[in-house]
Amino acid sequence: MRAADIAEPYPVVGLDTPALVAARLIARDRLPGLVVTDRDGAPKAVLPASEVVRFMVPDYVQDDPTLAGVLGEVPLHQITARLNQATVADLVSARRVELVVLKADDTVLELAAIMARLRSPLCAVVDGNNILGVVTASRLLELVCEDDR
Amino acid sequence: MRAADIAEPYPVVGLDTPALVAARLIARDRLPGLVVTDRDGAPKAVLPASEVVRFMVPDYVQDDPTLAGVLGEVPLHQITARLNQATVADLVSARRVELVVLKADDTVLELAAIMARLRSPLCAVVDGNNILGVVTASRLLELVCEDDR
Repeated sequence: MRAADIAEPYPVVGLDTPALVAARLIARDRLPGLVVTDRDGAPKAVLPASEVVRFMVPDYVQDDPTLAGVLGEVPLHQITARLNQATVADLVSARRVELVVLKADDTVLELAAIMARLRSPLCAVVDGNNILGVVTASRLLELVCEDDR
Repeated sequence: MRAADIAEPYPVVGLDTPALVAARLIARDRLPGLVVTDRDGAPKAVLPASEVVRFMVPDYVQDDPTLAGVLGEVPLHQITARLNQATVADLVSARRVELVVLKADDTVLELAAIMARLRSPLCAVVDGNNILGVVTASRLLELVCEDDR
């Protein structure tokens, strides 16, 4: 069994994708993050869900987190408005997470070793510049548990 | 809206839970990880899915990752056997990830600020030693997107 056999389709967003669209994709499928492609379509970075959450937090609270406890409730539509004005490029610019890329014929052991070493919840399987799909840590575990039945 | 209103039920495992049971829970619901409670039932740590994957990798490959490319296919039943002999305590011992704990009356902004700062995909909402539930980054984003509709 090789990486290409295990990879699953996964939502991919571009740098120009609206941030709210990215947030909806993560929310809909309860994903750990999204794969971001560069303007030429090549896989470039992971946008972890927690980075989109970071964008929900006003800058002055990011600078001084104790303010979050003092401010009380922030209306959700204010947060939505903030996401509405941003693109994926704004979300990944601060702390871009390098995408872990594997080749189509890598083995399950190679997948597991890389994922474990980099503590990545997500690897992209590529054939040249073409994304064949993504392998998540939970997908790898599913494979092992299936074999157990 | 407060943390207790947003928290969702989430699988909790103990230190004595068999590693294969933990792997199955992560795989079944495609979770980013599990909440681990101490022997007294108090929430203690997060077991990220990638840590369970790490345990799939033989020690000599963890020490020298280039071996993964040389070894070729490893039968899945060998990996399953390894997980079968271990408990959650074995999985969390190497790199225990501290659980982010929030109080029931924390606001959405406090949740978002903590999750963003610690890059955590998962926070537990507790009332004393009692786990009310868990808030994932994707759940927080769902909340914002729902408000948008």
